[in-house]
Amino acid sequence: VSVAPQTGTVEPFRFEDGALVVLDQRALPKAERWIRCETVEQVADCIRTLAVRGAPAIGLAAAYGMALADDRAAAAELLRSTRPTAVNLAWAIERCREAAEPLGTARRLHREQQEADRRLAELGAELFADGTRALTHCNAGALATGGFGTAGGVLRAAWERGRLASVWVDETRPLLQGARLTAWELRQAGIPHRVVADSAAGSLMAHGLVDRVVVGADRIAANGDVANKVGTYPLAVLAHRHGVPFYVAAPVSTIDPATPDGNAIPIEERDPAELDAAGEAFNPAFDVTPAELVTAIVTEAGVLEPPFEESIARAVAPA
Amino acid sequence: VSVAPQTGTVEPFRFEDGALVVLDQRALPKAERWIRCETVEQVADCIRTLAVRGAPAIGLAAAYGMALADDRAAAAELLRSTRPTAVNLAWAIERCREAAEPLGTARRLHREQQEADRRLAELGAELFADGTRALTHCNAGALATGGFGTAGGVLRAAWERGRLASVWVDETRPLLQGARLTAWELRQAGIPHRVVADSAAGSLMAHGLVDRVVVGADRIAANGDVANKVGTYPLAVLAHRHGVPFYVAAPVSTIDPATPDGNAIPIEERDPAELDAAGEAFNPAFDVTPAELVTAIVTEAGVLEPPFEESIARAVAPA
Repeated sequence: VSVAPQTGTVEPFRFEDGALVVLDQRALPKAERWIRCETVEQVADCIRTLAVRGAPAIGLAAAYGMALADDRAAAAELLRSTRPTAVNLAWAIERCREAAEPLGTARRLHREQQEADRRLAELGAELFADGTRALTHCNAGALATGGFGTAGGVLRAAWERGRLASVWVDETRPLLQGARLTAWELRQAGIPHRVVADSAAGSLMAHGLVDRVVVGADRIAANGDVANKVGTYPLAVLAHRHGVPFYVAAPVSTIDPATPDGNAIPIEERDPAELDAAGEAFNPAFDVTPAELVTAIVTEAGVLEPPFEESIARAVAPA
Repeated sequence: VSVAPQTGTVEPFRFEDGALVVLDQRALPKAERWIRCETVEQVADCIRTLAVRGAPAIGLAAAYGMALADDRAAAAELLRSTRPTAVNLAWAIERCREAAEPLGTARRLHREQQEADRRLAELGAELFADGTRALTHCNAGALATGGFGTAGGVLRAAWERGRLASVWVDETRPLLQGARLTAWELRQAGIPHRVVADSAAGSLMAHGLVDRVVVGADRIAANGDVANKVGTYPLAVLAHRHGVPFYVAAPVSTIDPATPDGNAIPIEERDPAELDAAGEAFNPAFDVTPAELVTAIVTEAGVLEPPFEESIARAVAPA
């Protein structure tokens, strides 16, 4: 697996020789397979099929996809149609659509993501007391962002400062991004961790074994409601009951001021076959955590606290 | 699959020709495999490895196992060591240990379980309004009891009365008893259902799509705390938040008056390999739902309501 020299983290893709070369996350950790995308259609396929996933990472992949396209209007529409929930996708596409040099813009967004990740990771680590036992869901590490990671970056920065004791990793059904990707990243970073069934988080908290929950986000509404991988909302409810701080870590590009609240966030339904059930199945990929259950949103522009309408408005205001 | 004529339900085992013939639930629904147990050791293996599972069903399997044993004291110890959480196991073993005819006792317990299931199913169905969309976790149907089912029996009785619209089935990680067994039972009964990831229950409730939660139990303490498959507690917390009634369906034999509260219930840890994680894993099989989150406990002796100390004491008192 290739490691970016500038961040010391695993790279979900790299742009080289006129192509976006994508690490196929569906095959991890068992196999390291790279997919060479020379067209925007190939990039769109990688996003739709989750070869590359994670809100910031699919935004960047789409930006590089725009750089591969001849017809940028058609490419924008194609890329936007791949996945509906993450707002970073539309955000990155917009930034490349009218750019004089889309590849240069994609590279700049990638660099900015790396800087944002590192900055928010440092800010998030400040929220950890010594000996923190954290719990996370899905994967919001380097593989999900193209940088240092959001929730995963916070965990790594806290570990670097000696504040993190261990991490509980939700396996994250149905596609097991926690068991496959987060556990793999944490092992590479040397951070003690244990994978649990998603449904075990309740008893861990009831036994006082969780000090902080930290997750990423796919879209944050103007009022602070957070769409993230399905299962995030139950974690927030449990954390609230047990007095465990619940942090969302995400770059400002994940905040959509045009989305007033969680009800306005489209929730992707994925193939029921992902659940491998003996009967019919229903497979929403995300859920919405109401702002009232979020302790703070950690961004590169600062740690946003309630009332989120105000702190978010300040964070997204042009400098 | 063999169907018991007296209950019209799938049988998890039958005693014939001097052996307990166990339907291997690990292979369902893909294959129907029967394991012929001629010794108590073979029965104990079936319980330990989950070929037969479900608190009432493992109690009955253990009772038949006692009937196969020469040394009943040793057999009782062996069977008791197989799984720690379900109290029905110890309960059934005790009833066979000193019996003059252990096979006759096992058969009587089996018949009583079938009667108890049917009775509690009828009582539970009374709690359903027309058009109820229920949610259940794990499997507490015929496969789990050797009778009509507890939570599964309530669903079937409600369906027979035309009160049940549909069932959300938690897939129930890590061993997928919901996706494999409950979905299979519901399909056979013609009851509309959809399997969901365990972590999707929160958003279903948030969208007002769940009217009742009904689950089984592995042990109920004297104060009404309930041990059941891991993931039950988060469901109860979510149901409480959303004002959804949360019912536990179990025979009186699942109540242990000698267990004062949930803290005294031993929680089985199973092989971390069940989680198939890239790193270390932790795999508790059960969790404890505090009595305060339980709307009612449906037993064959009546629907027990808070304060549970009193209603439980009455239910377990000798007639």
